[in-house]
Amino acid sequence: MPLVHISLRKGKSRDYICSIADGVHRALHEAFQVPPDDRFQLIHQFEPQDLIYDANYLGIQRSEDVVFVHIVAGKWRDTATKKAFYKRVVDLLAEEPGVRPEDVQIILSLNDREDWSFGKGLASYVKD
Amino acid sequence: MPLVHISLRKGKSRDYICSIADGVHRALHEAFQVPPDDRFQLIHQFEPQDLIYDANYLGIQRSEDVVFVHIVAGKWRDTATKKAFYKRVVDLLAEEPGVRPEDVQIILSLNDREDWSFGKGLASYVKD
Amino acid sequence: MPLVHISLRKGKSRDYICSIADGVHRALHEAFQVPPDDRFQLIHQFEPQDLIYDANYLGIQRSEDVVFVHIVAGKWRDTATKKAFYKRVVDLLAEEPGVRPEDVQIILSLNDREDWSFGKGLASYVKD
Repeated sequence: MPLVHISLRKGKSRDYICSIADGVHRALHEAFQVPPDDRFQLIHQFEPQDLIYDANYLGIQRSEDVVFVHIVAGKWRDTATKKAFYKRVVDLLAEEPGVRPEDVQIILSLNDREDWSFGKGLASYVKD
Repeated sequence: MPLVHISLRKGKSRDYICSIADGVHRALHEAFQVPPDDRFQLIHQFEPQDLIYDANYLGIQRSEDVVFVHIVAGKWRDTATKKAFYKRVVDLLAEEPGVRPEDVQIILSLNDREDWSFGKGLASYVKD
Repeated sequence: MPLVHISLRKGKSRDYICSIADGVHRALHEAFQVPPDDRFQLIHQFEPQDLIYDANYLGIQRSEDVVFVHIVAGKWRDTATKKAFYKRVVDLLAEEPGVRPEDVQIILSLNDREDWSFGKGLASYVKD
């Protein structure tokens, strides 16, 4: 069920963008209890001036390659799971396509099972 | 108060997009207790590769016409209301512009009355 | 930590857009307890037909200059803080670039400390 928004600057190759999307999804599967076929991602590409970031907030050096991964997901994961997930995303994106860990920003917006309808007008995760 | 994000592939006619926006709003009014003039919608049109979806998750066959309806709204609706709303959206979009029920994905992100300011810097839904 | 989405019609000058982004961030700092270097903003520019708004909801006269400021932030601010923040945004944007208070719509989506990773795969706001 997660709905994943990936926001980055325009100008990257399709391979680069696909690697980010693949890595985020693989981390969701491996570390966030998301089924492999539960993949829904929207890629937002911004003009440089439309993507504003502080290059040193919290002492972390961000570059023009900064990526925002904003995930809407169910709220039943615990803090340990979230921490493992953040780590896994960063490790995978560092491998491929080679995003610096400092450039990966992840934000979770959580909701309930009844807040999802994934087709046919059904509340997909509500047991009748 | 809802803020409605409608995300779909580029390439649809304006009439098609308007019909989706109209249908979602009509469903909000008829089944989600939203006043008819409480309409605020942002349409996001994506290049095909920037809109990633699984074509069979939960056994539901999605096509290139998949639409994501992500609604930020107040959290005081109950599960029965949400279920009726999902059904109403899908029924209306099937009628006009003819979106397959399988292609309609709805996600709710809920907040409180005090989280809205709809003009003039006022907390629009907070009673003083 | 806030992630700020600013949505408006295409066609405004860069100076105009920057003034809005600056004003929103200054209000976050002055009235929402956000550090000055905690600035992350995404600017979404829409074709006129893709930004749908009611021009009179709640008796407030909105124009084509309507701006949606959607903020994902931590949920530990109280109602008084939110009200002061809304007022501050509107006052600053009225000064510069001169947005009518009626045209400023603010929406908050709130989450927890553990829902943020601002680099390096760390849960930035969780104390170990």
